[in-house]
Amino acid sequence: MYGAGDVRVEEVPDPTIVEPTDAVVRVTLACVCGSDLHPYHSMPASEEGAPMGHEFLGVVEQVGDAVTDLAPGDLVVSPFAFSDNTCPFCREGFHTACQHGGWYGAGGVGGAQAEKIRVPQASGTLVKLPSDVDASMLPSLLTLADVYLTGYHAAHMGQVGPGKTVTVVGDGAVGLSAVLAAKQLGAERIILMGRHQDRTDLGRTFGATHVVAERGEEGVAKVLELTGGEGSHVVLEAVGHMPAYEQAYGVVRPGGVISRVGVPQYEEAPIGFGSLFGKNATLNGGPAPVRAYIEAAIPQVLSGEIDPGLVFDAEVSLDDVAEGYRLMDSRERLKVLVRP
Amino acid sequence: MYGAGDVRVEEVPDPTIVEPTDAVVRVTLACVCGSDLHPYHSMPASEEGAPMGHEFLGVVEQVGDAVTDLAPGDLVVSPFAFSDNTCPFCREGFHTACQHGGWYGAGGVGGAQAEKIRVPQASGTLVKLPSDVDASMLPSLLTLADVYLTGYHAAHMGQVGPGKTVTVVGDGAVGLSAVLAAKQLGAERIILMGRHQDRTDLGRTFGATHVVAERGEEGVAKVLELTGGEGSHVVLEAVGHMPAYEQAYGVVRPGGVISRVGVPQYEEAPIGFGSLFGKNATLNGGPAPVRAYIEAAIPQVLSGEIDPGLVFDAEVSLDDVAEGYRLMDSRERLKVLVRP
Repeated sequence: MYGAGDVRVEEVPDPTIVEPTDAVVRVTLACVCGSDLHPYHSMPASEEGAPMGHEFLGVVEQVGDAVTDLAPGDLVVSPFAFSDNTCPFCREGFHTACQHGGWYGAGGVGGAQAEKIRVPQASGTLVKLPSDVDASMLPSLLTLADVYLTGYHAAHMGQVGPGKTVTVVGDGAVGLSAVLAAKQLGAERIILMGRHQDRTDLGRTFGATHVVAERGEEGVAKVLELTGGEGSHVVLEAVGHMPAYEQAYGVVRPGGVISRVGVPQYEEAPIGFGSLFGKNATLNGGPAPVRAYIEAAIPQVLSGEIDPGLVFDAEVSLDDVAEGYRLMDSRERLKVLVRP
Repeated sequence: MYGAGDVRVEEVPDPTIVEPTDAVVRVTLACVCGSDLHPYHSMPASEEGAPMGHEFLGVVEQVGDAVTDLAPGDLVVSPFAFSDNTCPFCREGFHTACQHGGWYGAGGVGGAQAEKIRVPQASGTLVKLPSDVDASMLPSLLTLADVYLTGYHAAHMGQVGPGKTVTVVGDGAVGLSAVLAAKQLGAERIILMGRHQDRTDLGRTFGATHVVAERGEEGVAKVLELTGGEGSHVVLEAVGHMPAYEQAYGVVRPGGVISRVGVPQYEEAPIGFGSLFGKNATLNGGPAPVRAYIEAAIPQVLSGEIDPGLVFDAEVSLDDVAEGYRLMDSRERLKVLVRP
């Protein structure tokens, strides 16, 4: 990406092993993330450009000397952030804070919207998939790189469980994934706040029991009405813009939890007596440590217990990735697969 | 209180039963709260004035027709907020959000820095004490009305437990109480951030293993150094001013918890990628629902397991309550008993 709206496909040298802990993976399937749309809107024009994409699965082509548990030919899925899986923060389940981790597309590491990618900390990062997996399963397995397990992280941090009313703010792919995760964790009622009917219909498929199309104060009033004036035990905020956060603290119940996974497009926000403190509301969430959840989710996908790949409603080749961005940005499509 | 710094003691009519759920209590012991100092600093001058005080224990003098579990002569302690103890929020342990609850000193309910006080929702609010309790125990039992159990609420919401490093921001009576509560809950290390040595000495008595006198960035650096650069699992913020909150998100570990019980003197504050979100930090806390914790704490006090009344280092008569405010505001004294 060379600036807002300026996505180009270019021939670059193949990645190679730089550190002994690296692997090079040939990308089988990648996709465009809602978070890729933030720079698509706002990135200043740049001479160098930035490699894009952080969600992929593929086949290991080459490993560094220190990588003993992976071999060329292995089918693997990668979390959207790399991590060593051994540092104190990884051991506590917060791999996105790994002391030796980092992000794709930055610091000399390429993006996943590409034919090949170098994976730092390969042993800690990559998770093997059965080599004979049916190709029809690959989109759902790809969601474990980010979108589904980001929704799952929201629900996990939000302490979703039986008997809980959960409100999901946002009907994008992460919001819908959060609906599916909340259902998995046993939520009693799932209220989806979104106004795109094709999306909220998928939300109902995933487990939403109510849809609130209204936004702002009207939307808050509607959720309060649905909860007998008491508010929602859990709010999963999957947007990242201030109005979504305002809705979140408007509908959360005293003692409830707001769990955010939409990357905040703000730094300061209300947290004083009138928003969080007075209600004893909890605020948490952050970049999802999907590495912590991925191994448990693979069998759920393979058994058909969950079908998170339903969020993909379009596919482009690598040459057409700019069209993929356009389709998502215009909201013509929910989430776009990229097949190199 | 008639305005900032303007505390007067006046003769007013005795409170009487207004609602059948009321009781009238003769106050045996009350005190001045750190939160009383906020209006002492900033209250606009007022013709009517505001009744003050919300921490007390005393003897029931009179009960309304609906109050069947209390009788004149009962020795009782009151949480700083009244509540019915039966509404959905009370049942979930968040009595300060009670649907029929409220605050002393507002809405026609008097303050506790008085000879007598009307207690709404008396059955849900008041907790009986043994009538033969030794007078020397009364200050520690009084702390269950607010200060100790506010510190306990911070530690409880912060998920303090064995193996955890806990940083307490603030060496006021609530901060010191949070140290004691963190010790009770099994914290491995307790770092107290405060710079008044007489207070931090009491903090050490209560269980602090380290004291950091530095503030701001220096203080943050010191706590990070003490935790091997990793940060604190739990931060208990017992001040309420922005610099204390800034210290809190500076020292919290990725995946850690900031639990606030200092009433925020701000509404907006940093919560974006650079403060909370990037670290997956949790923010919670609020007005302590001490009613939820009070019954378990009474035997701890009576058995001598905890001695939270050590926070009191002065006593005034009701006539001298203005001097009590002055002593606390000037930091000459930590917390002042008021004996009517």
